[in-house]
Amino acid sequence: MKFYDCKTAPSPRRSRIFIAEKGLEIETVQVDLGAKAQFEAPFRSINPRCTVPALALDDGTVLCDNASIARYLEEICPEPSLLGRDPVEKALVAEWLARVEWDGFMGAAEALRNTSEFFKGAAIPGPDQYEQIPALAQRGRKRAEAFFTVMDRRLGEANYLAGDGFSAADIAGYVFVDFAAWVKLKPAPELVHLANWREAISKRPSVSA
Amino acid sequence: MKFYDCKTAPSPRRSRIFIAEKGLEIETVQVDLGAKAQFEAPFRSINPRCTVPALALDDGTVLCDNASIARYLEEICPEPSLLGRDPVEKALVAEWLARVEWDGFMGAAEALRNTSEFFKGAAIPGPDQYEQIPALAQRGRKRAEAFFTVMDRRLGEANYLAGDGFSAADIAGYVFVDFAAWVKLKPAPELVHLANWREAISKRPSVSA
Repeated sequence: MKFYDCKTAPSPRRSRIFIAEKGLEIETVQVDLGAKAQFEAPFRSINPRCTVPALALDDGTVLCDNASIARYLEEICPEPSLLGRDPVEKALVAEWLARVEWDGFMGAAEALRNTSEFFKGAAIPGPDQYEQIPALAQRGRKRAEAFFTVMDRRLGEANYLAGDGFSAADIAGYVFVDFAAWVKLKPAPELVHLANWREAISKRPSVSA
Repeated sequence: MKFYDCKTAPSPRRSRIFIAEKGLEIETVQVDLGAKAQFEAPFRSINPRCTVPALALDDGTVLCDNASIARYLEEICPEPSLLGRDPVEKALVAEWLARVEWDGFMGAAEALRNTSEFFKGAAIPGPDQYEQIPALAQRGRKRAEAFFTVMDRRLGEANYLAGDGFSAADIAGYVFVDFAAWVKLKPAPELVHLANWREAISKRPSVSA
């Protein structure tokens, strides 16, 4: 297997933490998104969508999404479980992953990609040209901020987003909060459940992997 | 278990087809989105996010996303498998589900919700107010249309989106193509692989469930 990563980007960070939590050692290639290396031939032939993370399997399959990479690694290396341990918990991990992605990550990404000079003409990841939409950046900020409150409420009733156990949903949530700071969005200090959860997760060695 | 559905809406249709493919009989409640019944007390107390599908489990857990509903039902009723049969296929189902959702469904939903009179002030599903962004509707159309070509190319190399076997990714893809027609987006006639796949899937009894 070969893992295509970019040390500075939030999306591959999710898979990187997942791999570290599993205790797996996977040969890793850095793709320099800052230099737009994802659009050049070596990587483009591996993932024509020009996004990281990507995980090239030994049979030639290339997985190009955090969801597929997590699923594959959970299947070949079930312990420690990161996608849930019983049917309800598995479902709740899926539910919270979806919420973090749609309501959190998407908002922060919209805020960043529709304002930053660097993403002009590239408001959506990938090789196709999409112009920035300033109103979408505003909407993204509003949504990401609202999601901090959703997370806080949830973490007031459970230790982790999907319930009792640390899971891929927490990885996604943690990376989302860090990512939101790129567009100067920070959880309000009164969101103490969120703050305590972040503090606890920040001590896991995997998050600095 | 109780399944909250809306016969006329594309999102719950995915879970409805999934349930039918599994051969499960689940007590079903129709939530009339046309009359905005999802915002009223009876349903709002079940899912405060005011979206369908929702699946209320016997232990009180309510799952409110196609991903979590599919995961739960696959776990309690593994056959026929709809989320993949081995690690690589499971990963590819996750990968194509993500692609259909982000590149297909999201585009069509953006096209619809940012233009239709009905969705004024409700450009994002749920109880929070979000104004329409006309430029986002245009972008959504472009993305959904581009995704028809992606699907066609994939279906030229495999019988189904995730490979040899029919899966939840095909359900999502099929519902997406039908949904895109709401905003008058139809696959070009030269996309024959996509057309043949649609024709084959249209014969499955589940799609008219």
